[in-house]
Amino acid sequence: MIAIDDTHDPALTSWVASANGHADFPIQNLPFGIFSPAGGAARPGVAIGESILDLGGVAALLPDAVAPTLSGHTLNALFALPAADRLALRRRLSSLLADESHRAIVAPMLHDTAGCTLHLPAAIGDYSDFYVGIHHANNVGKQFRPDNPLLPNYKYVPIGYHGRASSIRPSGVPVIRPQGQRKAPDADAPTYGPSRRLDYELELGVWIGTGNPLGQLVPVAEAGGHIAGFCLLNDWSARDFQAWEYQPLGPFLSKSFHSTISPWVVTAEAMAPFRTAQPARPDGDPAPLPYLWDEADQAKGALALDLGVAIRTAAMRSAGLDPHPLSRGVATDMYWTVAQIVAHHASNGCNLNPGDLLGTGTISSADRDGLGSLMELSRGGAEPVVLPGGETRGFLEDGDEIILSATARAAGFVSIGFGACVATILPARPALP
Amino acid sequence: MIAIDDTHDPALTSWVASANGHADFPIQNLPFGIFSPAGGAARPGVAIGESILDLGGVAALLPDAVAPTLSGHTLNALFALPAADRLALRRRLSSLLADESHRAIVAPMLHDTAGCTLHLPAAIGDYSDFYVGIHHANNVGKQFRPDNPLLPNYKYVPIGYHGRASSIRPSGVPVIRPQGQRKAPDADAPTYGPSRRLDYELELGVWIGTGNPLGQLVPVAEAGGHIAGFCLLNDWSARDFQAWEYQPLGPFLSKSFHSTISPWVVTAEAMAPFRTAQPARPDGDPAPLPYLWDEADQAKGALALDLGVAIRTAAMRSAGLDPHPLSRGVATDMYWTVAQIVAHHASNGCNLNPGDLLGTGTISSADRDGLGSLMELSRGGAEPVVLPGGETRGFLEDGDEIILSATARAAGFVSIGFGACVATILPARPALP
Repeated sequence: MIAIDDTHDPALTSWVASANGHADFPIQNLPFGIFSPAGGAARPGVAIGESILDLGGVAALLPDAVAPTLSGHTLNALFALPAADRLALRRRLSSLLADESHRAIVAPMLHDTAGCTLHLPAAIGDYSDFYVGIHHANNVGKQFRPDNPLLPNYKYVPIGYHGRASSIRPSGVPVIRPQGQRKAPDADAPTYGPSRRLDYELELGVWIGTGNPLGQLVPVAEAGGHIAGFCLLNDWSARDFQAWEYQPLGPFLSKSFHSTISPWVVTAEAMAPFRTAQPARPDGDPAPLPYLWDEADQAKGALALDLGVAIRTAAMRSAGLDPHPLSRGVATDMYWTVAQIVAHHASNGCNLNPGDLLGTGTISSADRDGLGSLMELSRGGAEPVVLPGGETRGFLEDGDEIILSATARAAGFVSIGFGACVATILPARPALP
Repeated sequence: MIAIDDTHDPALTSWVASANGHADFPIQNLPFGIFSPAGGAARPGVAIGESILDLGGVAALLPDAVAPTLSGHTLNALFALPAADRLALRRRLSSLLADESHRAIVAPMLHDTAGCTLHLPAAIGDYSDFYVGIHHANNVGKQFRPDNPLLPNYKYVPIGYHGRASSIRPSGVPVIRPQGQRKAPDADAPTYGPSRRLDYELELGVWIGTGNPLGQLVPVAEAGGHIAGFCLLNDWSARDFQAWEYQPLGPFLSKSFHSTISPWVVTAEAMAPFRTAQPARPDGDPAPLPYLWDEADQAKGALALDLGVAIRTAAMRSAGLDPHPLSRGVATDMYWTVAQIVAHHASNGCNLNPGDLLGTGTISSADRDGLGSLMELSRGGAEPVVLPGGETRGFLEDGDEIILSATARAAGFVSIGFGACVATILPARPALP
């Protein structure tokens, strides 16, 4: 586990005034991303309050091992560094942004975030999505398989599948309503057209840092060291396509049309104070197999993160209404820790690479306030959610904007946030002839 | 459809003597790949008989649009060119290698294949695997779901799933036996260890050339133009892991430990004479939905390819025995054409990129001689295959070498082959603590 150090000191403040008291990006966070200033090329940066520090611009002030990784337009090279180098970078950045003596030399390398464009932080080699939100698995399982919601493997295997990397986009890129095959239960045959059951999914993303060569396993006790950081992930899903296509090989086009991530990588180092005990398994559940079991991971491997989903429809925007909260949850509703996910993924020898992205799967709570998809909230559309202004939603409509949020909290520490993970639904493109 | 032209003339010969009569790489083939000469860097090349032509070395003789794509160590930039540019390149290469007048300038850029290393031809952004071998789907379905082998969606949806790109390796790289969770039907709980039911799968790979932007669909009539070429694909599978993990999200670690491809890209242009009619669907099968239907694709979209699998065990190698044929098949046993696969993949707006790889899924024939996996041949291990020397195989053992082959044949044309797709099984690494 990464140690808590001076960079997490709640008394620490920055000479970047907007950082102090900032909900997402106080000096205790220092997330990495790729941004372009107006008219400029994409480059690595770190968020501090309402500004972004151009890392390449201060490379000469940074640890020697780090500087060469900052010249590209992805963070893959930074992710590939040993965790110790990333920690040294964090400490140096904390000092540069806290200590007034560095202001004169560092301040010219700050850009107002409002004038910048944020990009994907890494070239994502492979994206895998898991299914560790046990309440979600139960809720969805009941809709797809009423007699058999949670399959016998669930409590042994961190269930996951390969996802589509090419269609992952940063927050803000609109989502075009996908077209595909859907078959009503009472129809004889499917038809092709725009999805009628478009949904969001509240997930965490896990960025792989140092990878493992093909054939080399990652012990669960070391798996945390392979994680560079975290983001929010909205795994948009066309439930009608999913129900029709998913057997026997799993979801495919129901998920691959678009996934949205928050563009800032909240580092594993920044999350050190927000690690907590993995909740004990309910009585009767099997213990994890030895290759997934690590005492320290059980004691400190879970994430103390509050999660949220909100919606703002086109009508709400027109009426000047604020986004409406749909659900609130906590990341401790994951049945497996992120270290267990990584260890399992590599347990067959599969090589993970710097910049690979793992999704946790939808995180829902046991109660109704914490359901991480609209399919769960509306019980498959049967009980539409009532929104301010009287609109209802069984599934998403064109113009709907979905906003995911995450905040790490722990007593005695300054909370840190993940920043925006937002996108709006656009109408389907004209159908094929 | 790509026209047949002078480059396919059966009377055409090359001044590279080994090309004439070559089983795989006569001058009518001209497949692209990435190779390193001894001590040299990886670079694009074209196979001609027992030699490889260094494309960068003759760049000045090639079409202007092509030359800039030949300086890297992948073919992604070449794949991204419009199909017309690839066709111009083919015509020029055919002329350079046929016409004795070019020999003096071109011959110094030839390398003996035996002294070269072959690499993956492209940086594979995403790998998707389909399931279009209907006899395979039926055979496997019977083993996993005896009461329900072919699901209701099969004849409407070109079923596919996302695969793992990072663990794809070129022919010749050994396969380490994977470890993972497997549960015997009569066991209370799974255990973790080396796979006991390791299998091969005979597939074709389809290389994406020009891609499509996110949200833009690919009409089936245009889908062929997005295909750069073809390869062989061995989708190694741990059947014990697969049976335990695959519900509800599909195969994951049972497939992601290693996939082997033949390193030469047999271009769509080279395959022009070997396109044939898609077999008529059996009476009672539904017609494809309109977005998957194209008259010309039905008339000429299938591939006239003979396929084969052979095995050589360690004992057979020691005894000096030749590889033993396990099965023979034909690519017309695909229920969907490659154009239908591409159109379906993009039908939800999913963006395909140059260098993406699609697998067809295992291609089995209806009869016992054409089964594309050992699981089918041995009926799940219950009827082990007898090999020369008396050994038997229910599933693969350490030291087994599996050899896939493909040859395109058509009356009046010179046959072309895909080259080697071979790998040997190594023992599992020591288990995790």
